Order: sequence, then C-alpha cells, then structure tokens
Amino acid sequence: MPPLSLLDIAGIVTVLDVLGVCVFAISGALVAARKEMDPIGFIALGTVTGIGGGTLRDLVLGVQPVFWVSDSLYLIAPVVVSLAMFWGARLFHSRYAGLVWADALGMALFSVTGASKALTLGAPPSVAIAMGIMTAAFGGIIRDVLAGESPLVLHKEIYVTAAFAGAGTLVILHGLGVGQEVRALAAFALAFTVRALAIARGWSLPHY
Amino acid sequence: MPPLSLLDIAGIVTVLDVLGVCVFAISGALVAARKEMDPIGFIALGTVTGIGGGTLRDLVLGVQPVFWVSDSLYLIAPVVVSLAMFWGARLFHSRYAGLVWADALGMALFSVTGASKALTLGAPPSVAIAMGIMTAAFGGIIRDVLAGESPLVLHKEIYVTAAFAGAGTLVILHGLGVGQEVRALAAFALAFTVRALAIARGWSLPHY
Amino acid sequence: MPPLSLLDIAGIVTVLDVLGVCVFAISGALVAARKEMDPIGFIALGTVTGIGGGTLRDLVLGVQPVFWVSDSLYLIAPVVVSLAMFWGARLFHSRYAGLVWADALGMALFSVTGASKALTLGAPPSVAIAMGIMTAAFGGIIRDVLAGESPLVLHKEIYVTAAFAGAGTLVILHGLGVGQEVRALAAFALAFTVRALAIARGWSLPHY
Repeated sequence: MPPLSLLDIAGIVTVLDVLGVCVFAISGALVAARKEMDPIGFIALGTVTGIGGGTLRDLVLGVQPVFWVSDSLYLIAPVVVSLAMFWGARLFHSRYAGLVWADALGMALFSVTGASKALTLGAPPSVAIAMGIMTAAFGGIIRDVLAGESPLVLHKEIYVTAAFAGAGTLVILHGLGVGQEVRALAAFALAFTVRALAIARGWSLPHY
Repeated sequence: MPPLSLLDIAGIVTVLDVLGVCVFAISGALVAARKEMDPIGFIALGTVTGIGGGTLRDLVLGVQPVFWVSDSLYLIAPVVVSLAMFWGARLFHSRYAGLVWADALGMALFSVTGASKALTLGAPPSVAIAMGIMTAAFGGIIRDVLAGESPLVLHKEIYVTAAFAGAGTLVILHGLGVGQEVRALAAFALAFTVRALAIARGWSLPHY
Repeated sequence: MPPLSLLDIAGIVTVLDVLGVCVFAISGALVAARKEMDPIGFIALGTVTGIGGGTLRDLVLGVQPVFWVSDSLYLIAPVVVSLAMFWGARLFHSRYAGLVWADALGMALFSVTGASKALTLGAPPSVAIAMGIMTAAFGGIIRDVLAGESPLVLHKEIYVTAAFAGAGTLVILHGLGVGQEVRALAAFALAFTVRALAIARGWSLPHY
C-alpha cells in the first residue's frame, strides 16, 4: 500500500513538527514566566520560539510562503499553548528544569524535521544536516536574545552536538535507504538521548 | 469612479507605509542619539528600524524582492530622515518621550499596513493579524537589540496588545466588507489610542 | 575572448566571496576562543558569521535558495576553517587584533561582492549600495549579538563608512563602464584602506 505508507510518512513528520512547535512554545512561555511578563508577552515569546527555527529553515530553503502562513494550525497551536502556560506554568515544580527539558524535546524533534524537509527538497547531505541544526537551535536563540539572556545553545553543555547527532543520523539512514518512520524515530531518539545524558550527567566537550 | 477609488486605496496604504518607515527611522535615530553614535550610526540604526519589520513581513509572505528593493523610495526616505536627525534630534525636548511617541505612531501604522498587505496576498485572518503585529514590533525589537537594550516591546506596558487591536480591527472590518479607507483609519486610530492611553496612564496587563 | 573574460569576472567574485566567508569564519572562531567555547561552538559561531551576511542579502534580493544551499562549498569551507581555528587560534599573537583584521578583510570583500550581486540582479544603485553594506555588516552583527557583546559595527570607529566607500565605488565605477575586475579590486582596496587607517590611526567621525 504505497499511498497509505506515503501518508504515514508525511503524517509522522507533521505530528513531530507540531509537537516541536508546541514544546518550544512551552519553553518560550517558561522564560516569559521567569521575566514576569503579561499574557501577551507569553504569547509573543512562546510563539516566536515555537516557529522561529522553522521560519528561518523555510526562508533559507526558498519554501514560500513559510509553513505557518500555508497552514495556520502551526500559528494557532503555539498561541494557544503559550497563553495556557500563563496559568499552567505554576504546574511545573521547577521552571528552569521545565525549560531545559521542553527545550531538549523541541531540539530533538526539530533536528529530525528540519533535516527531513531539506532532504525532501533535494538538498545535499551537508545542507540537510545544517538545516536540522539550524531549525533546532534558532528558536531557542531568539528566545534567549529577546529575553536578554546568553543563548542556552552556546553554553558549554552539549547542545548543537546533540542536534548534529540527530540530523546526521537521519541523513545517513536516508542514504542507506532505511524507511522514513524508522530513521525519523531513530534520529529523534539519539538526539534526545545525547542531550538528556548531557543534562543529567553534566557532560561537555573539551573547551578552548 | 472605481479606478480612482482603487488608486486612493493603494495610495492610502502607501502613504501610511512611508510614514511608518519614517517615524520608526526617527525612533531609531533617537536611540542612536542616546548612544552618541556618529552620522553613519544614525543612518544604520534609523534605516534598520524603519524597514526591518516590513522586510521580515515580505520575507515570510514570500514577496520578492522585498518592498525597498522594488521601490527604493522606501530605502532613501529613512536614510535621509535618520541623517537629518543627527542635527534635528536636539529639537526634541525629551529624547525618551520622542522615542516612545514616534515608536507608538510607527507601531499603529505598521499594524494596519502589515495586516493589509497579508490580506491582499490572500492570507487567512490569523496570519494577517500575526503579520500586522510582526511588522509593527520587529523594527523596534531589532533597534533595541542592536543598541544593547531590553526590547521596549516586551516591557510590561501594553504594546503588542495595541498592535493586536489594530490588526484585529482591520481584519474584522475587512470581513464585514467595510471600505478600505475607513477600516485602515479606524484600525490605526484604535491601535494608536490604546497605546497612547497605556503610555499616558501607565496601563498594563496583569503579569505573571 | 568574451566567454573567457566572463568566466574571469564570475571567477573573481566567487573567489572573493569564498575568501570573505573564510575570514569572517575566522573572526567568529576568534570570538568563540575569547568565550572559551567547545569545538562545536567554534563551528557554529564561525559558520554563522561567515554566511550570515550573504544569507540576508540573498533573502532580501529573492535569490532562492540562498547561496550556500545551491553550492555547499560555501557551507563546508567555513565549517572546516572554524574547526581548524580551535587549534589554530593559538597562532594569533593577539586574538583581539586577529579578530579586528579578519573582520576588516571580510567587510571589504563583502562590500564588493554584496553590491556586485545586487547589480547583477538589476537592483538600482541605492539598493546595491545598501546590499554591499548589509552583506558586509550583518555577519559581524550576528556574531557579536550571539556572543553577548555590543556589535563592533556600531562602535564609534569608522566601519559602515568603509563598507559604504567600497560599495559606493563599485556602483559608481559600474555606472562609468569600468571593467568588473578593475572595479572589484579598486572598491575592495578603498574599503580596506579606509578601515585599516581607521583602525591604525583611531579615526572616527564626529559623534552626537
């Protein structure tokens, strides 16, 4: 059943992408909570964090208009999630831990969907990997710059490395002809595991 | 006289857009004055503030090339205005008040023209509202980030809310079939009034 | 031999462009060294600095996809150069001097290639000049914002002025019908000389 399988493939990437937008929106809203913003500040910072990485990806790849203009679900979902966090943020025992883990989940999801979208559009492997990393990292960078904080991404923890592991795995498995569901899930699992271990065990690369 | 009316419609949006670029350029130049920049710094910061929001709007909507490449009046006007401010900034009794009010005017103008342009290109209502807010807010955000200050937009004052009121009014009146001149002026008036009251009376939303 | 000459012309701009990407990548890696980042941080900051200005140029001009997606050499070169700097940065006697001079070289190169690309695409003179300045300045601005520093570009030293001199010279010589090799080299030499004198002699414009 190739048509059904094709539907599943597109479906998996879409579901992961919406999930990524929502967890990054949560991470943006948690920063808004730390900065004691008003509900509109929650919506603005959450939405920008959620859709920022994918927006840059689409601009650079020449996808027009960008994904959230083509399908406004991608715009409405982070607006609703961010606003809900104005009340829901109190449910997190630690806002900083919530931020770090939502950010890790979003990073792993976007490293996969960013690289997938680039491959679908015929980009070469190096560009697909860069696109996975960029999609994963850019939303969080805007979030931190707007909030006046040093970007989490550039801290000495392993972050871009984890996104590189996810995007690289996806591109290699694609080259080996592995099916799209399997390679998406394998790449996501690796990116998230690397980042989770780095957070839990304080892993870092040697620095200058 | 439909053709004349059509001309008027495009004319109103164009005039508002050039006005918006110029008042945002003034706000950028006033920040350059606070930072004691040289004339080139005035031009750079003023021009980026003036055209930044519309540039992002056009990129996201897939308008190519962006408006100031198609029509260089939009580039030359803020360059001239910003440079004139190198001498003219002294005319402002208070540079901070000048900045806040030029910024308010630019915000109200761009919330209308940003949403209008998106509707003209066939974007759905939620995207048109987001585009109005983004056009209104982005120039000021770049201005403040480049100047190393916390973005005015994210302060606890009502700002994005005012842009939301303007863009939302425009989209609703468009849906109700109200003529373009009337809806543009009504939306502008509402956005500016909300922001002006917030500035004058220190209004703010409840914060986290 | 028009075809050969044409090849030379494209060849000169390409070589200057790759050089510009690499020296800006070095400047980004030197900031990574000052911030004591890990190898991935070197790659990220160096690559973003190297390709950031040209990416914005291509987005604004409507070139799709952007240059480093079309030709991945522009992506791979700064990745390799930035990573090599993780060990090579120690070769610089003064990392700050290295940064300032690599940045000056990149600025002069990109002021020429940015304006050339805009002219090739039929942009009017004012837009071509703006594009030269923007390509030259934007990579360094992102570098400094990401590193949490005040952008070097907006300091009171002559910087944007030098890029303006380079891009303006290129556009004027183009208008006068001067050959592309000569105008590219003359414009580069002027931009670099103005910046070098400003650095060496502490030149600055009068400030507000």
